[in-house]
Formats: sequence, structure tokens, C-alpha cells
Amino acid sequence: MKKRKIAILGATGLVGRRLAELLVDHPWFEIGMLVGSHQSAGETYEQIWQRKETQLQLHYGIDNWQKRSFPEKLKNIVIRSFNDLLHSDIEYIFSSVPERAGELEQKLLEKGRTVFSNSPYGRFENGNRLVVAEVNSKEMEDQSFIKSPNCVTAGLVLTLAPLRERYGLEQISLTTYQSISGRGDAKYPPELVKGNVYPLHCSQEHTEEYIVREVRKVLNQVIPTSVSCNRVWVQEGHFVDVRVVTTTKITSDQEVRAVF
Amino acid sequence: MKKRKIAILGATGLVGRRLAELLVDHPWFEIGMLVGSHQSAGETYEQIWQRKETQLQLHYGIDNWQKRSFPEKLKNIVIRSFNDLLHSDIEYIFSSVPERAGELEQKLLEKGRTVFSNSPYGRFENGNRLVVAEVNSKEMEDQSFIKSPNCVTAGLVLTLAPLRERYGLEQISLTTYQSISGRGDAKYPPELVKGNVYPLHCSQEHTEEYIVREVRKVLNQVIPTSVSCNRVWVQEGHFVDVRVVTTTKITSDQEVRAVF
Repeated sequence: MKKRKIAILGATGLVGRRLAELLVDHPWFEIGMLVGSHQSAGETYEQIWQRKETQLQLHYGIDNWQKRSFPEKLKNIVIRSFNDLLHSDIEYIFSSVPERAGELEQKLLEKGRTVFSNSPYGRFENGNRLVVAEVNSKEMEDQSFIKSPNCVTAGLVLTLAPLRERYGLEQISLTTYQSISGRGDAKYPPELVKGNVYPLHCSQEHTEEYIVREVRKVLNQVIPTSVSCNRVWVQEGHFVDVRVVTTTKITSDQEVRAVF
Repeated sequence: MKKRKIAILGATGLVGRRLAELLVDHPWFEIGMLVGSHQSAGETYEQIWQRKETQLQLHYGIDNWQKRSFPEKLKNIVIRSFNDLLHSDIEYIFSSVPERAGELEQKLLEKGRTVFSNSPYGRFENGNRLVVAEVNSKEMEDQSFIKSPNCVTAGLVLTLAPLRERYGLEQISLTTYQSISGRGDAKYPPELVKGNVYPLHCSQEHTEEYIVREVRKVLNQVIPTSVSCNRVWVQEGHFVDVRVVTTTKITSDQEVRAVF
């Protein structure tokens, strides 16, 4: 199969760097362009990568933060500007721009490109599809703008969807133990999170609100949901405590295991 | 007021050391004896304290564990044996022995002493009172054996009791973020807990089971309770997410705040 050429928009951010790791050896895609802000354009990806990973490590402490290695195959690639992307022939874009830069995604759509986006921008607008491929991939068909939900929702619906299919869901109760990586290169003040539990309730991150709305949109069903989100002193990987009330009774542990 | 002379049984353990901190300048009590195991008897408290605190710090890492300072007023005190306590005239004993050493508490009771105990030993036996002073202090009256619950329960019932009084409680849902100190000098393997979330579900610690049974005993009411317990990478201080279904409707945040 010929690989499709893609670009990563927002490649220098923490999510962009993880996208690059996932796409560098992908069987279907080939990285054709790495796009960053005006300030980043012209610099090599490796330089920016090393600088940002080092900043994270210095910020949180060498004992608490492990740098991610730069993918050798991306050596010597120079970060390009959004304008370069707009005037390229690359049709498929993976975007991880912040919400405030959502207009960039809009410009790409207007030029007829297909955008897979991890950005909160437009996530809740009705026309935009919110997709977790294992759950509602059908929604992607004939679409050119496909949004991914928040990191917690993405993993969570993988658990909820098969439970709903088998038992039906009446109520959902969630408590998160979210890692520090979720804050990305913006970083938390270390004194807030180091050896601590940091509540996100009523914070500017809107995580609790996002999860409720996203689960609703991905599952396409209104299920009463209670959420409490907290950061824990973990570098990467979220842990979620999930409790549900099902429509039909669960009769054994074995039965539930067979659902997955 | 003349201070009552007390002894701390299990004084060298992590809970015993915290008891010593709390009792050293207490307005009602005076530490008359610090009691440890056969191996500890004869050593100064300071020596053992420094050794154990240093071991914790070396174990979890100098960056992650702060040593508690030795209370200067306890300088030169030598740890005594259980036999010394049994033959002393000290009437009041604060105990933090492990469950397996519960017979020591029994021996003191047989000699007519009053034992305030933090040990899980006998916590669920009907005759033994399980007390959180702010909630059910009346149960202490005329008793010589008063048990304290698990560290999570102790703080939790302070929240639940006034809510129950005002609204009634139909259901309780708990999710804990428990600190590493709860494991005491026994210590966790660092790789289990360092930068991690470590589930206590089905572990040997029985924390989930204890909390359900203790809340029931302290509140003297059977309320359907769901509990999920996890350790987080925090030195000291538990964080608990508490959700309740009340009998009468809560109409505003202000109203709830006024309950406390």
C-alpha cells in the first residue's frame, strides 16, 4: 500500500511530539511536514524537542520526569510554518493546536483538506464529529473534520461502550487520577503537584465538564454522569475509577470480563 | 489541672511516633513511658526515631520523603519493655501495636488499665467501642477499651456525621487517594508507588473492607457504601472523594457549608 502523506500541525507541543512518535513508523501514513508556530519555523525538530523535554525535566525534577527520546528518523527535519502547509499538496493533517488557534484548522478545511484534530476547538459543535475509532468509527465516513475527545474520555468510552451494549447504562460515576503530562509544556507550578493531589474541580481546565459532554457525544446518549477530576504526581498515564449502574443486572465477574 | 500520666505502647512505629508528637505538649497528658518491642527496649527513643526516619527517606528517595524531627523534650528517654509497663502505675495507655500484637492490649485491660487503641485488633468486636471523639464520644463513657478506626474513616466520618444529621444519608460513594505513610515503616517497594497510582482493591491491607465496616460502626447505621481505595505518590495526608445520596434534598451550596 502506498502511504498517505500527512502533516502534523502543532508538532512541537507535547501532544504533537507524541503524535510524531506514533506516526513515524505508521503502516498507512508518512510524515510529510511538521508544522509549528512562527517562532519555531526554521528550527530543526530535534532542537525544539530536546529543549522542551529538558525544560520539563528541569521543571519537575530529574528524579520525577523522564525525557522522551527523539525519533531518529525525524533527524534534520526543519519545522515549517502554517503558510508552508497551506501551500503544500498535503491532504491529511493531524492537528494538536490549542483551542485559541482553532482558526488554523478552519483554514485547512476551507482549502479542502481533511483534518484529524486533538484540539478542543469546535469539539462540541454539532456538525463536527467526535470520534473514538473503536467506538463510533462510522461517524468518520465522508467527513473532513474529525475531532478526538479529551485524553480521559478517549480511554473511558472503550470501557463504557461494550458495557452499554451488553447491559445498558443508567448512571456513571467517575473519579480520575490524572497525570501531570496532561498539562503539557505549559507545566504546573511544581509546588501544586509535587507529592500532592491537585483537584481540577472548577479549574480553568474544564476537564470535568468536557468529560461529561464528550461521553454524551461519543456514546450519543444522555446518561446521568458524576465526575470528579484530580491530578496526581505521575508523569504520564491517567487512572480512572469507573462505577456504573446498569439497566440489566450483572450476574458475575466472569460475565463482565467476557464483554471486553 | 494535674496532667495524667500516660504510656505509648508501640511508640517506635510510625503511628507511635506521631502519637508522641501529639502528646509531648498535650495540656491533659504527660508521657510517662515509651514502650517498644524486646529489640527496641534499652535503646534511646531518639536513636530509634532517627534510624527509622532515615530508613524511610533512603527507601523512598531524599527528594520524596521528609524526615519528621525528633521532639527535643523526649531526649534521653529510653524505650521500655512491655513488662515494665505492666508493672508500672501508669493507668492510661495509647496503643498503636500491629494487629498480631493485640494480646498486649488484652493483658493491660486484664490489669484494669484504660487503653486507647489505634490497632486494628478487636476493632469490630461488638463490645469494643469504635470512637471518633467529635462524632460519638458518648460511647467512651465508663469504657476502658476505646478503639480508633482506620485513618481514612477517622477523617471521613467528620464529614458524614453532620451531613447525616441535617439531611439523612441513603448512599455513600468513596474514592480514596491515600498517602504512602499509611504503610508505615513496613514500606512499599518503591517501584510500586513511585510516580504511580497503586490500587488497594483486594490487597492484604483490607482497607476497603475496613472503611465500610468502620463507617457502619461509628455512625451506628447501615448505609449502602461503595469504596475504591488507591495509594498515590504523596508522603502524608489522605485525600478522599466523597459523594452521597441524601434523604432530603440539598437545595444550595451555602446550605451545605452551614452544616460544617
